[in-house]
Amino acid sequence: MSVKRIGQVIGIKPEDIEEYEKLHAQAWPSIIKIIKQANISNYSIFRYGNLLFAYLEYTGSDYEADMAKLADEPEMQRWWKITDQMQWQVPETKENNWWHEIPENFHVD
Amino acid sequence: MSVKRIGQVIGIKPEDIEEYEKLHAQAWPSIIKIIKQANISNYSIFRYGNLLFAYLEYTGSDYEADMAKLADEPEMQRWWKITDQMQWQVPETKENNWWHEIPENFHVD
Repeated sequence: MSVKRIGQVIGIKPEDIEEYEKLHAQAWPSIIKIIKQANISNYSIFRYGNLLFAYLEYTGSDYEADMAKLADEPEMQRWWKITDQMQWQVPETKENNWWHEIPENFHVD
Repeated sequence: MSVKRIGQVIGIKPEDIEEYEKLHAQAWPSIIKIIKQANISNYSIFRYGNLLFAYLEYTGSDYEADMAKLADEPEMQRWWKITDQMQWQVPETKENNWWHEIPENFHVD
């Protein structure tokens, strides 16, 4: 099984940090299920000040297709409607992306 | 086996990014071995501009002891002598730490 490791960054609005953390500490089971169905595992979000860093592993065979399917889920859209407004995109973010993907410099299995 | 997931942040000097990435793309086998012996696995470093973001998993039973042992290794010290001068500590870093540990807001296994 091949694993694609992904690092991502996005901003978090200072006034929404508390609510964002509460929400994520008790994330909806429906969202967890959708994430797993998209072949994403070992997914963590860390916070450094007003920046969020995500680490996740993708184990499927078609990342674009799985992400498109995930984005089509009404529950996912409901979740994003709440979380998107708490976040701000970093200026380097590529078109049609929300989180900004960052390169991996080093890895030890 | 319990897994402690750790997120860390440190700065990278713009003029040293290229050299830092070269060095880490071909990290010394001795360093990889020392990291693994310290019960660290699945260790990645990502870069966002002038910030490095590390993700690692600790599977031992005494993190402080394993980190102390790792820090005592002459090869590790030789490595850090090169890499430390390429990095700058973020202001939030705790005393006696080099990288700054950041909290995990969310996790999906």
